[in-house]
This record gives sequence, C-alpha cells and structure tokens, in this order.
Amino acid sequence: MPTVHITRRERFSAAHKLSRPDWSAEKNYATFGKCSNPNWHGHNYDLWVTVKGIPSTETGFVIDLSDLGKIMKARVVDKLDHKNIDLDVDFMKGIYSSTENLAIAIWKELEAPVNELGGRLFCVKLQETENNHVEYYGE
Amino acid sequence: MPTVHITRRERFSAAHKLSRPDWSAEKNYATFGKCSNPNWHGHNYDLWVTVKGIPSTETGFVIDLSDLGKIMKARVVDKLDHKNIDLDVDFMKGIYSSTENLAIAIWKELEAPVNELGGRLFCVKLQETENNHVEYYGE
Amino acid sequence: MPTVHITRRERFSAAHKLSRPDWSAEKNYATFGKCSNPNWHGHNYDLWVTVKGIPSTETGFVIDLSDLGKIMKARVVDKLDHKNIDLDVDFMKGIYSSTENLAIAIWKELEAPVNELGGRLFCVKLQETENNHVEYYGE
Amino acid sequence: MPTVHITRRERFSAAHKLSRPDWSAEKNYATFGKCSNPNWHGHNYDLWVTVKGIPSTETGFVIDLSDLGKIMKARVVDKLDHKNIDLDVDFMKGIYSSTENLAIAIWKELEAPVNELGGRLFCVKLQETENNHVEYYGE
Amino acid sequence: MPTVHITRRERFSAAHKLSRPDWSAEKNYATFGKCSNPNWHGHNYDLWVTVKGIPSTETGFVIDLSDLGKIMKARVVDKLDHKNIDLDVDFMKGIYSSTENLAIAIWKELEAPVNELGGRLFCVKLQETENNHVEYYGE
Amino acid sequence: MPTVHITRRERFSAAHKLSRPDWSAEKNYATFGKCSNPNWHGHNYDLWVTVKGIPSTETGFVIDLSDLGKIMKARVVDKLDHKNIDLDVDFMKGIYSSTENLAIAIWKELEAPVNELGGRLFCVKLQETENNHVEYYGE
Repeated sequence: MPTVHITRRERFSAAHKLSRPDWSAEKNYATFGKCSNPNWHGHNYDLWVTVKGIPSTETGFVIDLSDLGKIMKARVVDKLDHKNIDLDVDFMKGIYSSTENLAIAIWKELEAPVNELGGRLFCVKLQETENNHVEYYGE
Repeated sequence: MPTVHITRRERFSAAHKLSRPDWSAEKNYATFGKCSNPNWHGHNYDLWVTVKGIPSTETGFVIDLSDLGKIMKARVVDKLDHKNIDLDVDFMKGIYSSTENLAIAIWKELEAPVNELGGRLFCVKLQETENNHVEYYGE
Repeated sequence: MPTVHITRRERFSAAHKLSRPDWSAEKNYATFGKCSNPNWHGHNYDLWVTVKGIPSTETGFVIDLSDLGKIMKARVVDKLDHKNIDLDVDFMKGIYSSTENLAIAIWKELEAPVNELGGRLFCVKLQETENNHVEYYGE
Repeated sequence: MPTVHITRRERFSAAHKLSRPDWSAEKNYATFGKCSNPNWHGHNYDLWVTVKGIPSTETGFVIDLSDLGKIMKARVVDKLDHKNIDLDVDFMKGIYSSTENLAIAIWKELEAPVNELGGRLFCVKLQETENNHVEYYGE
Repeated sequence: MPTVHITRRERFSAAHKLSRPDWSAEKNYATFGKCSNPNWHGHNYDLWVTVKGIPSTETGFVIDLSDLGKIMKARVVDKLDHKNIDLDVDFMKGIYSSTENLAIAIWKELEAPVNELGGRLFCVKLQETENNHVEYYGE
Repeated sequence: MPTVHITRRERFSAAHKLSRPDWSAEKNYATFGKCSNPNWHGHNYDLWVTVKGIPSTETGFVIDLSDLGKIMKARVVDKLDHKNIDLDVDFMKGIYSSTENLAIAIWKELEAPVNELGGRLFCVKLQETENNHVEYYGE
C-alpha cells in the first residue's frame, strides 16, 4: 500500500508588523529592524499544504484537492487575504506574527478538518518572500 | 562518508482524463468534476527525480546526471511526452491516471535502472500545475 | 493624461493536437512531429491580457482587474479549461489549434467586452510551455 | 549605432489600501472590494526599470546597472520597502495607491536621475501579484 | 492578415569577465567591480528569440519552433554553452562581453537564418541573472 | 514546544570546470563531457540554507534571518560570487567542484556559525541550473 504526499498551494496578501507592544520603539527597531515599522508593511504569502496518505483504489486520490482547497480557503486564506494579520485574524489574536508563528497557527486551523478528509496533515510551508520560507511538520 | 541527495528535472506535456469506464458520466462528473471531460484535457508536467548516495571520490558525483537524464527520458518522458496517458503509455495500462498513481508508476519504471547507476532512488516528485504536486518515496 | 498598460494572468489546462484531417498521418507527422499524436496531448496554458488606458481620477484604475478577470473567465478560460481545444470550444470550430491561431481567436472573443470596460485591448500573450509563447496585438 | 534596452529588477514589500477618505465604507467596499480593508493589506512588489540607449564603445554598457540599482534604491525602494505606501512615502502623498498610480509616481522619481546616467528611461513595470502587473512608458 | 510574435527560449551556461586588456587591473576594478575578476565568473543565461510574421494558412505557424530551436542551437547556444565567452566563441572575438554586446552579436548570428525560415527576427532578449536582462530589436 | 524549519536563499554567480589535472583531456571529456571545457564555464547558483529550531517566545524567531544572511554572505557567498570556484575559493582548495562537493563544503563553512545563532543547521540546498540541484543534510 504505497503512501504518497500531495500538496496544494494557495496564496494570500496581507499586512503585518513585527513589534511588541510591551517594548519601546527603539528596542523593537533594534530587534526587528524595518519589520517594526509602526504603520505596517505587507507581503504576498504562498501557502503549501501537504497531506500524506494512501491513494484510494476507487479514485486514485489521497485526498480530493478540491476539498483540500476549500478547507484551506475557509479556515485560513479567506481570513488572511487582504487583511491585517495582527488586527483582523481570529486565530492570530495574541500571537506574534513571525512567519514561524503564523505557520504553526495555520497548522492548528487545518489539522482537524484536513485529517477528517482521510489523509494526514504532513507539512505547512509558508513563503513570505522569494528568499524566505518556513516549514512546520506539527512536531 | 557524506550522503547527498541529487535531483534532476525533466518535463513532458500529455493528455488524460479522470473518468472510470465502469461509472456513469454523472457519477464521474460528481466525483472528478471538470477532470472527467470525455474529450480529455492535458497538462505540462514537471518531473523531479531525486537519487541519494555518496559522492564518488573519483568524480565527485553521486550519479552522472547525464545518465540519469537518459534513463528518465528512455523509461518515462519519451513514453509520456505529447501522448495520452490513458491510451498511449504501456506502464499506465489499467492504471487510473491520478497524479498520485502516475508518480507511483514512474517510480516503478525508474527504480531498477536508477539503482544500477550506483545511487538509490529516493523521491519522484510530479507537478501537474503550479498549484498541485505529489511526492512518492517508494514506501 | 498618462497612459498605462495593465495586465492580468489567468490559466487553463487543455488537450489538443496539430493534425490536419485532410492530410495523411505520415504528412501530419512529417509536418507537426510529436504534436500530431492522434490520441491528443495537452498543456497548462498561461494567458496574459493587457489593456491600455488612462487611469481614472476617481479610482486610479485603467480598468477594474476583477471585471477583466470575469470577462477572461466567461469568454475564454471557462470554455478552454479542462477541455479539448479541437473538439469542445465553440470559438475554435474550424480553426487549427496552433498557439498563434488560438491567441488570435482569444483576441476576437475579448476585444468587444474588454473595450466596453473603458480601456482598449492591447495584447494577448499565450504561453504553451516555459519555452514557447506568442503575442498578438490585434494587427 | 545599435540601441539596446536594459532592465534591472528590485523588490519591496509594503502595506496599502484602496479606500477614498471622502467615500463611505460601503461605497469603498462596493468599488474596491477586499482591497478597501480599513486595517490595510500588503504585497511583495517586483519593480523592473528599463533604460534605452546605445552601448558605450568603452565599457559595452548602456548604463552601469550598479548605478541604476543605487538610484532605484535611493529614490524608490528604500522609501517603499517595509513601509505603508499611503502613510509613509513622500512621493505618494495625496496620490491614490493603485498600481497604475504607483508606477507613474515611480517614473517621476526616476526619470531625471536615470537620464543623467546617459541612457533614457523607457519603462517602469510594477508587479503586485503573480497575476497582476502594470507598465508605464512615460506617455 | 494578422501578425503574431512568437518566442522560443533556449538556455546556456558560460564563463566570462568584464575586463579590458588595455586597462590596468585597478581601472578595470574601478569600472567593472567584481565582474572584472581575472579568473572569470559565469552565469546561466536565458535567451528568448522572438520572430514576427503571419501564421501560415496551411500549418497555423509563423515559423516552425522546432526549426527555430535548431537554428538557435547551431548558431548560438552550442557555441556558448559550457564555454568561455571571451576565449571560445568565434562570433565574440574582439567584442567585449557585456550583456548588451552579446545580445547584439547573437542578433547578427540569427538574423539571416531566421529570416530564411519565413518570419522576421524581431527581438533577442538575454537574461543574465533573475535581476538583469537586455533586449535588442535590431535597430 | 514546536520545531520549525526556516530557510533563506542567497545567490552567487561563479565559474568552474569539472576536470581532473591528473587525467588526460580525453579522459576528462569522456567522463565530464562539456563540463570539462579547459577555459571554464559558469552558473548562477541558488543557495538555500535551512535551520531547524524552536521559535523564541520573545521574538517568534527560530533564528534572525538577517543574521543568517550575514553569515551566509561572509562565509560563503562573498567568497564565491563572481569568482572561479576552482581557483579563488579558500574552502574549495583541493576539492573537486561538483555540485555535491560544493554543497558539502558550504555545510562545513556554515555549521559552526549557524549553530551559534541558536538553531541547528538542517539542510544546504544548492541549485546549479533550473534542472539540477543537490541537498546535503550533514550526514
């Protein structure tokens, strides 16, 4: 019974900043540099979600990518796209919006509904710019 | 003795459809959506094959990428490129052409001849569109 | 009054072949090579549509890209995506599906509705593979 | 004396929104959709600047790309990168931040210093997402 | 009779340097910076060649892209690929290997044989890195 | 305590050849083909460095990507960019410049300074062309 990893990409564009409210502007700038700009900045994020499982003998699918896309949109992308990550996103309340933390939070949003589809969530990969990305495997 | 993973990409363009002959058109459409179009559709596929091994002290190579490319072409790409996956491809006869199943079938074609080159086949990655890809590790 | 060119990309995946019914299989193969495979092949096509115009002082837009996207989908992409260009597409009936001819036919579908939006259709760019594309400027 | 077009790309990440202060939230949303989110959103922008000229017989250069890069950074990129286009950027004060208007404003910033280098500014291309871009030729 | 632009990409990897033999090392470094390294450096170049013409009513082609590819390989790519542009390439003897000059020289190699195919050479685009490219239109 | 993989890309352009001085030109050509060209060739290399660790509760970072970038530049990229890998690079002296060996050597340069930052070096991925890349995990 072969196991296959299948991945779907969705995209969103959002504003955020890296700035702790309990720190001074100076300390925020010393720590986060230009990412601490008080008036925000933003990115086009690419999100790849990988699910691991055994292809169905009936359909040849590990998971229906259309269903996976719907879950990604409903749980994650529609909440982040053209939003402010720090102000507008329920699952990021009280969480500091580093790419690392955002990927972990996205995993938590997706894990239960993706696993209900029959496969197993394997990896959340989040790319912030063409030079930077993170991967979280749920561990 | 360090172990390195080395990857080569080849590309092919092919037609296929997702449609079981033992199902009605309605059931196929309900299951596979637009992928079940009776008159076929097609894709540009990107195929990455990764081989794992110890670089030769003589050449610095895990495997000669030129040899790997020749095997990929002879065993896989030349059989798929500008073909109909469901009608023209010997190693896909009787196999349902989901991306998952195609990646598994490509692994089976490549495993023996790649391992004869001295490395060990590690991963077949097959990308169907910029938003969708699968990976198969032979397990 | 500055003039700006604005471009939107949409994508579709389709099957086709290059093969004239009034020619023998041999002549078709001699002329079109592997593209003449009787059982079809396919591609992921990238379509860029460029509109030229003066940005509105009210909105800053040459054209609403959302409206342009809707026209591209309704007139072109939904008719081509996961279809057989030679069998399924009304505006390609009797037209030979070279990339050149397909770009010209797409221009004809888009010209009137795009120009109604207020800008002027400037270019249809159609990419068939990462190595091949055509551009048509309506002339 | 051959004329060559030479292009350099720089990138920046910024926040903005499309929302007129003299309109109601409802009218802004009806016109600009999700781009009108009051708490901002953002993008990774790719900026290509093309200069046209005759290669120097001494250096083979139309323009020193290093000099062009410095001008692009000093006049445009450093002012936009990790900033809010609507709040932080001197040359966008009172200008509505559609991609069209931003490209025109960037042209105005670059025209004089680029032309001093010896070539002639030919095109400002600004890409907001992988699906959308504008080009401005100074006319 | 519609006119279409059709483009084919080929790639080559080559070494070169920017350094005039009649200048001192100091002057070369002051002018060309790291590009003047005496021991060479190198790039993966992407070459796009665009041909303009009327699609044949018989084949739908402006030009057979397979023929264009053969010309590009025989006249240009095979001479440059895995070569030293300054030492190994007949058509670059005595020409300084800026990207501008290389594009002009490629145009001269391609103009006659491409025009014999029936279309008309329109543009040579040469990309040296993801941030830099030139275009030459034969004027 | 979740563990995240974070990756940064840097780029360099360099010359090299694959040619053993203790072999004849004929044997080198038979083994390495066009890569053995005596006058060198070159590439644009993309280097991705992945670090594994637990995001700081204070900053949300596994590692400061700005610090990682500085280490990558000081230890690796500045030594390779616009250089000859076989002649100019201290950490490649006596090492044969296959992509495999180069990735291993880069790992050795980065391991200690990256681990001092607090994370743990996980992968060095080095891409030589769009069709070829290697990954080294330090084992």
